[in-house]
Amino acid sequence: MNELRKDLLLDRFVIIAKNRGKRPSDFAQKEKKEEKRLCCFCPGNEHLTPPEISRKESGGRWVVRCFPNKFPAVSLNFRKAYGTHEVIVETEEHGKSLSELPLERVMDVIDMYEERIRKLRENGKIRYVLIFKNEGEEAGASLTHSHTQLISLSRIPKLIREELNAQKRYFKKNKKCFFCNISEIERERIIFKNEHIICFAPYASRFPFEVWLTPVRHVGCLSELRTEEKGSLALMLKNLLMKLDKLLNKPPYNYFLHISPSIQTKYFHFHIELCPRISKWAGFEFGTDIIINTLPPEDAAQFLKDIAQRI
Amino acid sequence: MNELRKDLLLDRFVIIAKNRGKRPSDFAQKEKKEEKRLCCFCPGNEHLTPPEISRKESGGRWVVRCFPNKFPAVSLNFRKAYGTHEVIVETEEHGKSLSELPLERVMDVIDMYEERIRKLRENGKIRYVLIFKNEGEEAGASLTHSHTQLISLSRIPKLIREELNAQKRYFKKNKKCFFCNISEIERERIIFKNEHIICFAPYASRFPFEVWLTPVRHVGCLSELRTEEKGSLALMLKNLLMKLDKLLNKPPYNYFLHISPSIQTKYFHFHIELCPRISKWAGFEFGTDIIINTLPPEDAAQFLKDIAQRI
Repeated sequence: MNELRKDLLLDRFVIIAKNRGKRPSDFAQKEKKEEKRLCCFCPGNEHLTPPEISRKESGGRWVVRCFPNKFPAVSLNFRKAYGTHEVIVETEEHGKSLSELPLERVMDVIDMYEERIRKLRENGKIRYVLIFKNEGEEAGASLTHSHTQLISLSRIPKLIREELNAQKRYFKKNKKCFFCNISEIERERIIFKNEHIICFAPYASRFPFEVWLTPVRHVGCLSELRTEEKGSLALMLKNLLMKLDKLLNKPPYNYFLHISPSIQTKYFHFHIELCPRISKWAGFEFGTDIIINTLPPEDAAQFLKDIAQRI
Repeated sequence: MNELRKDLLLDRFVIIAKNRGKRPSDFAQKEKKEEKRLCCFCPGNEHLTPPEISRKESGGRWVVRCFPNKFPAVSLNFRKAYGTHEVIVETEEHGKSLSELPLERVMDVIDMYEERIRKLRENGKIRYVLIFKNEGEEAGASLTHSHTQLISLSRIPKLIREELNAQKRYFKKNKKCFFCNISEIERERIIFKNEHIICFAPYASRFPFEVWLTPVRHVGCLSELRTEEKGSLALMLKNLLMKLDKLLNKPPYNYFLHISPSIQTKYFHFHIELCPRISKWAGFEFGTDIIINTLPPEDAAQFLKDIAQRI
């Protein structure tokens, strides 16, 4: 029987369509061929990108690079659409995905995220930093070389404002943070956890195999994580991506870092939302703002638990 | 220079990215081949669909058929996700698109929409009827035989509630309906109009080549249109779809009928929103609720005006 679920924080509804009885293989990707062409994210082509903002090196060569987006959605010069738009190339190796990088390289990527957030927050006009990844064409990636995007904005996006308000309301009502309580709230949908990080399929998942990662400790931003917490986050992110790759044959996905706005707030709890893009939003979703998800998150959590995948 | 636009009614933001200088050919579809397989929407296979609710006939055979969706997202039996989910097959001819049907067949389709809305509104529990079309795989159509879907719901979708409230606010402030005023408001973006219907690219278009159609006269629902107004609507819809087909080589698209909720309201003005799905929403859109549109609607309107296409 189908079920209408309201997001536990937001005014967002999802219909969990249980009647179609889908298995993971129904969502698995077909093989694709990549056209070979000049890649401006590859070593040797650094002159084709705008001037570098920052890099991480290993053995004397860069392994992560950050530079401005050539076609920015926002800019420090744009009236109203004020902000910066950056690209973070996650690896020097073309064709290697984030899930395939050694753990210490995933750490470098996360360190770059953290460094850029910290720097951008020094600009008093920047009120929000959004870090997101589009992996695969169906998830909006126009270039295949593995990369993340960063957009800093002079306004707090509506979604983040709503989330902040919802977390605040929950806090005031329950005298406890929603995410600090998450292992209780999402008990049946937890995929794995350790002393630092919890990984779960959220109750009102918008996408089949949607997964969220959140630190156990109450921190508003990635930049507040301790070294061992960042290590756990890198490990779980890699582990999760490997499981998804195995279960769904390298699905396209987006992930978003949900960090607190630049203003100090004790209510916002940092988390990452990862959304595989193996279903399409269509007339129903765009016409109603209600989302149909054909895989119950309880099943998604079980499938992901069952896939043996250890680093 | 990019520009941040707030929807004229809703709390919805779009970045119009003018700097990429796109032409229509950048959005045009590549050719696709269709696999031949049994189609349960074709004549002769009527027994493969759930029992018929209604049909329109011509020359003794059906030309439009309506029946319940085999995999309903909502149902009269579902707890919470209460409603009906129907399919309207728009033609008996497999492979023919709505844009290719003769005008009187497009009229039959619109008559079927109107009949189903009227009938479903007789059910006191139904508070909203959403009619939407997914054309093409990228727009969420799982079957290629041209069809529309209808979902009736026991709750008013958030988007419609927000739209109703926004129209009400506009009405009270300006002593006039927003859509009654549209030929003035959207002056530079009008594609065509006659005495009954106006067709325009909205100011804060979310998608390249997004187009809205609205009656000149203040009516809340398709079912309140007079015969000659429905005729104009069918003509303009067909004309618009033919222009899009020619300009973009049969793009995938969604359209939605925005009718008033079943409760009587004098504020809601009926309109149709048509959204070609030739760009992908990705990390930025899902992470911020701000949409990036790479084609200014002024340009879209001009391109659509310039394409000669008459029925």
